[in-house]
Amino acid sequence: MSGNSFGTVFKVTTFGESHGAALGVVIDGVPAGLKIDRDFLDAEMARRRPGQSKLATARQESDAVEILSGVLDDVTTGTALAMLIRNSDQHSKDYSALENVFRPGHADYGYFCKYGIRDVRGGGRSSGRETCARVAAGAIAKMFLRELGIDIVAYAAEIGGVKAESFDIDVIEKNPARSPDLQAGELMAAKVAEAAAAGDSVGGVVGCVVTGVPAGWGNPVFDKLDARLAYAMLGLGAVKGIEFGIGFKAAKLSGSENNDPMSEGFEFVTNNAGGILGGISTGEEIYFDLAVKPTPSIAQEQETVNKAGENTQIKITGRHDPCIVPRIIPVVEAMTAIVLADFALLQRCAKVQE
Amino acid sequence: MSGNSFGTVFKVTTFGESHGAALGVVIDGVPAGLKIDRDFLDAEMARRRPGQSKLATARQESDAVEILSGVLDDVTTGTALAMLIRNSDQHSKDYSALENVFRPGHADYGYFCKYGIRDVRGGGRSSGRETCARVAAGAIAKMFLRELGIDIVAYAAEIGGVKAESFDIDVIEKNPARSPDLQAGELMAAKVAEAAAAGDSVGGVVGCVVTGVPAGWGNPVFDKLDARLAYAMLGLGAVKGIEFGIGFKAAKLSGSENNDPMSEGFEFVTNNAGGILGGISTGEEIYFDLAVKPTPSIAQEQETVNKAGENTQIKITGRHDPCIVPRIIPVVEAMTAIVLADFALLQRCAKVQE
Amino acid sequence: MSGNSFGTVFKVTTFGESHGAALGVVIDGVPAGLKIDRDFLDAEMARRRPGQSKLATARQESDAVEILSGVLDDVTTGTALAMLIRNSDQHSKDYSALENVFRPGHADYGYFCKYGIRDVRGGGRSSGRETCARVAAGAIAKMFLRELGIDIVAYAAEIGGVKAESFDIDVIEKNPARSPDLQAGELMAAKVAEAAAAGDSVGGVVGCVVTGVPAGWGNPVFDKLDARLAYAMLGLGAVKGIEFGIGFKAAKLSGSENNDPMSEGFEFVTNNAGGILGGISTGEEIYFDLAVKPTPSIAQEQETVNKAGENTQIKITGRHDPCIVPRIIPVVEAMTAIVLADFALLQRCAKVQE
Amino acid sequence: MSGNSFGTVFKVTTFGESHGAALGVVIDGVPAGLKIDRDFLDAEMARRRPGQSKLATARQESDAVEILSGVLDDVTTGTALAMLIRNSDQHSKDYSALENVFRPGHADYGYFCKYGIRDVRGGGRSSGRETCARVAAGAIAKMFLRELGIDIVAYAAEIGGVKAESFDIDVIEKNPARSPDLQAGELMAAKVAEAAAAGDSVGGVVGCVVTGVPAGWGNPVFDKLDARLAYAMLGLGAVKGIEFGIGFKAAKLSGSENNDPMSEGFEFVTNNAGGILGGISTGEEIYFDLAVKPTPSIAQEQETVNKAGENTQIKITGRHDPCIVPRIIPVVEAMTAIVLADFALLQRCAKVQE
Repeated sequence: MSGNSFGTVFKVTTFGESHGAALGVVIDGVPAGLKIDRDFLDAEMARRRPGQSKLATARQESDAVEILSGVLDDVTTGTALAMLIRNSDQHSKDYSALENVFRPGHADYGYFCKYGIRDVRGGGRSSGRETCARVAAGAIAKMFLRELGIDIVAYAAEIGGVKAESFDIDVIEKNPARSPDLQAGELMAAKVAEAAAAGDSVGGVVGCVVTGVPAGWGNPVFDKLDARLAYAMLGLGAVKGIEFGIGFKAAKLSGSENNDPMSEGFEFVTNNAGGILGGISTGEEIYFDLAVKPTPSIAQEQETVNKAGENTQIKITGRHDPCIVPRIIPVVEAMTAIVLADFALLQRCAKVQE
Repeated sequence: MSGNSFGTVFKVTTFGESHGAALGVVIDGVPAGLKIDRDFLDAEMARRRPGQSKLATARQESDAVEILSGVLDDVTTGTALAMLIRNSDQHSKDYSALENVFRPGHADYGYFCKYGIRDVRGGGRSSGRETCARVAAGAIAKMFLRELGIDIVAYAAEIGGVKAESFDIDVIEKNPARSPDLQAGELMAAKVAEAAAAGDSVGGVVGCVVTGVPAGWGNPVFDKLDARLAYAMLGLGAVKGIEFGIGFKAAKLSGSENNDPMSEGFEFVTNNAGGILGGISTGEEIYFDLAVKPTPSIAQEQETVNKAGENTQIKITGRHDPCIVPRIIPVVEAMTAIVLADFALLQRCAKVQE
Repeated sequence: MSGNSFGTVFKVTTFGESHGAALGVVIDGVPAGLKIDRDFLDAEMARRRPGQSKLATARQESDAVEILSGVLDDVTTGTALAMLIRNSDQHSKDYSALENVFRPGHADYGYFCKYGIRDVRGGGRSSGRETCARVAAGAIAKMFLRELGIDIVAYAAEIGGVKAESFDIDVIEKNPARSPDLQAGELMAAKVAEAAAAGDSVGGVVGCVVTGVPAGWGNPVFDKLDARLAYAMLGLGAVKGIEFGIGFKAAKLSGSENNDPMSEGFEFVTNNAGGILGGISTGEEIYFDLAVKPTPSIAQEQETVNKAGENTQIKITGRHDPCIVPRIIPVVEAMTAIVLADFALLQRCAKVQE
Repeated sequence: MSGNSFGTVFKVTTFGESHGAALGVVIDGVPAGLKIDRDFLDAEMARRRPGQSKLATARQESDAVEILSGVLDDVTTGTALAMLIRNSDQHSKDYSALENVFRPGHADYGYFCKYGIRDVRGGGRSSGRETCARVAAGAIAKMFLRELGIDIVAYAAEIGGVKAESFDIDVIEKNPARSPDLQAGELMAAKVAEAAAAGDSVGGVVGCVVTGVPAGWGNPVFDKLDARLAYAMLGLGAVKGIEFGIGFKAAKLSGSENNDPMSEGFEFVTNNAGGILGGISTGEEIYFDLAVKPTPSIAQEQETVNKAGENTQIKITGRHDPCIVPRIIPVVEAMTAIVLADFALLQRCAKVQE
């Protein structure tokens, strides 16, 4: 119970460090009889993989997923489904320069205080590399949700101050920024390139939209649907905030403006709430936004301290995304899928008569 | 597992409906030997209680807490600590008008779809009344954290568009808005009164600051300190968003602007991160903001549907806070305390040699 | 997480000490729509209550259950169902004689080492009185299982060396020993009376039979049906052993003798396994036996130590069952029901297509 | 949550099928700073491996453990520790003969009813092969417990009706039966050989003794130390019963005979309780016995049914242990270690002041 598991009935446990032997995930609770779409799994992994465009790090990771258990003749058996992703370049670099110093904006100092250990190899367990295991698990969750007619799409709502002004779902995967607004996407890409040239990085906002969730999902009180999604999203290292529906804008409205009236046939006239009321889905589109901080690993020299607490400087070399937004998008979808797969199953237990 | 429990080692389970017999909470995992400060417990309950000022509902709740177990001679024994809060006015009202209709902005429709049951008595389990059990549990958690030198303060950062411009911790509990800026507090109160007069409500932003948490708390990966806090906060019905540190502002900065440099003696020069990096506390002040929506229960007529899905109107009568911000503040502190008490204990398990 | 919760989807949390204000239980996960049979609940409580016969302690406990939440118009709502049982005679006795000494055969010394606290009031949390909360929860579980056609019967298989030689389910509740063999029941009662007269106590064996569980319940690996039942049963203070099916007798057989052949229509010719194979129910009757130790509270003088570790003697006065077997029987049924209710719900999550 | 995880703070998740690609385990909650003793890990795996003697199956499994994560320079980092064991002979056999038929004494029929899937490859997830992952995790737990002075020894107390009459801890690993009585060990071996020759199998009793556990471990109520150990042990497929201390013998004693008196210095004069009272360790030796059924896979022809429920016969070919007792012994130790490592950590959370 040091934080490596997530979920209740559909429960995901990941393991692995950035530059260790391998990363992986065990899903305990995949229902039996799910057809595994191997191409889809590979495609999801490819979406997260670095080196897809100039916006992302050039590090080459093959990210080939080996399914170790829980699947027989391409169908899940109901037992623990484990997947393994080997690290190909684990010994390729000398990290000794980092051994005695803490990188600003990273978990280095906190981990050291927590465990008394300094795993310098690319950030160890706190590296974004860990998310490849989440994407693999998310792909399985998506296959299950697909059977239920649920679709999840995340996208770049803003990068480096440039906002998407239009929303065309079809262009998201067709521009390196993953913007739903092609034109804005080009400006976003320019901002990223500019930052990279300056040895710097930029942040942004990721949006996520879910369609097909019926009314009634989520749990009362502590395990509300939005609470669980927030738990999932803030569990991503770069995410510093989340808002559901119109979010912080609701704080400025009156009740008569913010409330979503209902109309004939259980339709909602507006959806300021983002598809969740009192923690339970309303049947409307679920949508939320995430604040993504600029990548902390930058080439510029930064002030920091060493293990003795003495002032020193650090210049982080190596391959790092000048903006994490495009690559975090499939991870956001994956975590959303993992949350929803769990609630889909929990929902079966809500009534005496199903 | 329908969402009524929260936490791992310090684990809270609440029960009770707004207009049922009683509400209560069981804490499983309070360490033995904690001195119970009965006055403090009562004071915390009083802070949440309605009818404290004109900003809040006039409903009279005594909110007397009876400790049922887990305490002997005012000291915790290590066994389950249960607390009970009777509802005094449970049969005081006729709810039959609501039986056939769903209130906009509430969980009514979602609960009905989930459970096939319509508990109309003041919102039932989804009522804000449920949070009195959280405040009782939070008071116990605060007693424990006090021994560790940890202090938690929440406040009204914004109400009805009026922002606190200064921060004086001493004035927070001295004005009905719980604003850290007395002057802004008066304007906030005026905005609330104005909305109430119009049969409407207003939202706002709650801030929370925690001092005294050492570096190293929180878990890697899924159970990050900020993730767990977000889980706790979005579990409050009116909260629609959360941001840690500078939050959504970080999305607009470059890495060189956003990163917090460290300096001699493991100090951080800035604290944009809000005291948490990679999900682990840095030893700096932890701070976050919450978007609180305007109270959905308003006196104005609203469009909605009945159980048959036909259009109808609703006018919500009765006593409702025209702004929930002041009263949610002790609840935010309580949930923060519950999260930190859990991580305080979990931290003891992090190393082979404590 | 100090052991006061049990179960996963149907999750029970109990609280309360023997001589504190009250005992109680919260069930998180009762499905909505269950009709509450109040008479049945009361009858179950009566079955566990002391003072039913000369075999049991004369202590008078009314054991009236107040349902605090989770039920509306006698039907469960799906939210946390809490029940409260007040202790009527909590201040009736002077326990100061026990304050400085550890009772043999009790948890006194262990609790003191664990928590550094000595709760002398009738054993505090480790008292058998705690089980009344389990019986209340078990009654709810039984109501749910009844809808599924599942029936649970426990009985005295042996007391003070006297074994039941026949099995008539109809006589169990008609003799004070709860023996399924009336004649043996009389001998058992005589053994208990004899022990009581000598200031001593006797142990015995409780059997339990469950009919109606379909094949396929239970989880692989760590959470097998028998494993969970064993977890539940060894959680009863007086239980020192459990065996499923023919149990320890199987250790003496060959595979050809022990294996249960199957025959036409998925019937099992024999049922040595006790209805569980590889941790999964087979559709046959589930049965198991429990070793119940003699009540440790006896009137004879016993050697023990005080808090300083010095030799001393103790004579336990007050009302204590000279044999716990008859009164543990409804508790065994209750815990069995709690386990099965959980697996009944979990089973709904086993397949993609239910 | 389909049963593949065990534990709370020290939490083990296993995966893998008998004839799939690999088996493995993730431990979430290994404290940081534990020195990994690679030789000890290999030795533990070797103790469980088949083909060690004529008592066991001749199947060759290399059982080489690859540590994938959580360890840096042979010391645990506090992050998830994953271990992988490849199956070498996964495609070596034709299982088509089993596809349509259920093996007596196995989980085949139950799994099929549960998941609607028939994984015939050597029993799939329900195979004893799964326990190699438990032994790997147990080896890590043992390394941790060694630091605390705790030692765990399991042994063959009885095989095929032959009981060990003496107890010499030093001979256990020196005879193929793992009997603590060399002479009895030879008779046990003869019984096994005899059964094997007849195409049959035998069962037995495994004993386990733990020294060094201080008083105070375990949780009250549902998560008692003996309850958790019973949960762990009945989670082993072949185990049909467990008794702590004198177990079922206690059922025949009076309280004055069964109670263990205490004497000067908190010593116990006797230890009928097996080192656990009221679910909490007493500081005395913990000991328990397990009923192990005869291996269900036997070469003799057996009556069974096919998937259509029609009568048929089955003769199980291949390599199977004619007695599982000797090989289950390291698994019993491993599960005991996993339970104790968890309680060792939980104990740190019991008091306000550690």
